[in-house]
Amino acid sequence: MASRRGRFLDAVRGTPQSPPPIWFMRQAGRYLPEYREVRARAGSFLDLCYAPGLACEVTLQPIRRYDLDAAILFADILLVPQALGQGVSFVQGEGPRLDPPYTAALLPRLSGEDVHRTLSPVYETVRRVRAALPEEKALIGFAGAPWTVATYMLAGRGTKDPSALRLYAYENEEAFAALMRMLTGATTAYLIEQVRAGADAVQLFDSWAGGLPEAFFRRWCLEPCEEVAAAVKAACPGTPVIAFPKGAGPLLEDAARSERFDAVGVDTAVPPAWAASVLSPHAAVQGNLDPLLVVRGGAPMLAAADAILDAFEGRPHVFNLGHGFVPQTPPEHVAALVEHVRSR
Amino acid sequence: MASRRGRFLDAVRGTPQSPPPIWFMRQAGRYLPEYREVRARAGSFLDLCYAPGLACEVTLQPIRRYDLDAAILFADILLVPQALGQGVSFVQGEGPRLDPPYTAALLPRLSGEDVHRTLSPVYETVRRVRAALPEEKALIGFAGAPWTVATYMLAGRGTKDPSALRLYAYENEEAFAALMRMLTGATTAYLIEQVRAGADAVQLFDSWAGGLPEAFFRRWCLEPCEEVAAAVKAACPGTPVIAFPKGAGPLLEDAARSERFDAVGVDTAVPPAWAASVLSPHAAVQGNLDPLLVVRGGAPMLAAADAILDAFEGRPHVFNLGHGFVPQTPPEHVAALVEHVRSR
Repeated sequence: MASRRGRFLDAVRGTPQSPPPIWFMRQAGRYLPEYREVRARAGSFLDLCYAPGLACEVTLQPIRRYDLDAAILFADILLVPQALGQGVSFVQGEGPRLDPPYTAALLPRLSGEDVHRTLSPVYETVRRVRAALPEEKALIGFAGAPWTVATYMLAGRGTKDPSALRLYAYENEEAFAALMRMLTGATTAYLIEQVRAGADAVQLFDSWAGGLPEAFFRRWCLEPCEEVAAAVKAACPGTPVIAFPKGAGPLLEDAARSERFDAVGVDTAVPPAWAASVLSPHAAVQGNLDPLLVVRGGAPMLAAADAILDAFEGRPHVFNLGHGFVPQTPPEHVAALVEHVRSR
Repeated sequence: MASRRGRFLDAVRGTPQSPPPIWFMRQAGRYLPEYREVRARAGSFLDLCYAPGLACEVTLQPIRRYDLDAAILFADILLVPQALGQGVSFVQGEGPRLDPPYTAALLPRLSGEDVHRTLSPVYETVRRVRAALPEEKALIGFAGAPWTVATYMLAGRGTKDPSALRLYAYENEEAFAALMRMLTGATTAYLIEQVRAGADAVQLFDSWAGGLPEAFFRRWCLEPCEEVAAAVKAACPGTPVIAFPKGAGPLLEDAARSERFDAVGVDTAVPPAWAASVLSPHAAVQGNLDPLLVVRGGAPMLAAADAILDAFEGRPHVFNLGHGFVPQTPPEHVAALVEHVRSR
């Protein structure tokens, strides 16, 4: 039987659910016509992130359409650098621009003192979503992990190989450490306020955790996320924290062993049976269907979903993708997938 | 004691060497002033690949400078699509262009029948390098793995997320399978001729093996490489084949278990102790220093090299990078690294 806040939180807290709860990365977004309609009204992408009414609406859209077990706040991982004082804009068709890119010279112009002034509309979105959601649906708050956000701040944009930015860390140890301290603090403050506003759990997206040597991964991906998780739990006891170190490969074991995380997201490239063998039986696992198979749809999509469900059977599992939906995903394929997972 | 062809081949064939033999991915290239001098004389990058005299010279340069244990043929993985009939060019500062990108409509214009006509200058380079190399130095031939080459053929260029190209495979099964068959055949023919011309071992670079679901990795990365390796060994018995499934993460275990490969290259993101635990004790391992640490140089570079040497001690190991040198690598850092590994 599900508890008051439902099957998602039960699974993330370590109790297996059958069928598993479902939500999807980028479940709100461009593949949905109702999202595109709101987006067209919103002005810029950042305007949408900072408009609680509209952001609440797009957060709820996939819950209405698919009756998913969890909503995830509509926002962007680059709101934190903007709140720290770096200029952030989104150029149509080109992605984000952060201006100027981070160097030691920018440090005096950044400040983690008052991130809430910029981010308060996000907390208002959280309050509205929580108020509008049925009791048994969870609301997931989120932030980018410090390393992933740092890659954008260093490059001044999305980049082909963000892992190459570790050269900055090797050659500018102090300036890099100062940036990471500021990001870790701001991310913690941001997530705590999301929980206080009504988020039931939080996820740290470390989208660029791949391609890193083990010592670098431990020091600059895993440890900052553990620090954030510990602080969130200290301020808001009982809040589940989900780590998603995308591309971490064999180093996923380190995240899986950490007691700071209630659940670990696994990306598309992680073999489910391998993940099941290295995760603690009590840690929840979240993932990991190839989002491109949802574009394909049909039997290959359902067979891959079955393989994942089989591999994680009997353990706490949250069904999800291994990466976010792409814009050309047919919404009817998503519906077929949800129905299939629920009918097992 | 080393055999006639030296310590590299002994290690790759399963006999531990102390210290391990050394070569580096992209050991010939832009970080070397003597390379830049030849490159300036060569015309285009492709002109250099097809000029046996100049390609031989740049292949030998790092051997002369650092006394490395193996030379690797100077060529490019995109010579194979060019030999198949797709237009290939390199745009200064922008990377490769393949025109038109592969679709089923291009298939009738491609042919694996006569790849040697285009590729014969490469075989001449191999003959010249082997004739010029000291007996105890090995010459490594190479090709791109079929999936990695296919990503360039499908995208028409290097791309930010080649793994997204698997959508083409999901949605166009027959046209994709036809492309992979043609690539597997051409790659096999190309490597066999490299060995006949004098290459002592061959390496398959699967640079885009990362980010793929396990079923896709097995079918379209691992199996084609195994097929190529088996055919090369059938035609040229005793030739060692090195697989380098870059970014394969936990799926590296599959490559490590394959009896088709004598050695497995491990990328920067693979924890050496984990690799040592999953590789068969008889399989050679090649890698995996972070190339950005060679830009950094000094104590952090040497400490990371020591950690790798310690993790692979007592097993057959070829010291290498986990990815190629970047252009800003100071050649004197490479010299210090070689001296350090050899002085242990």
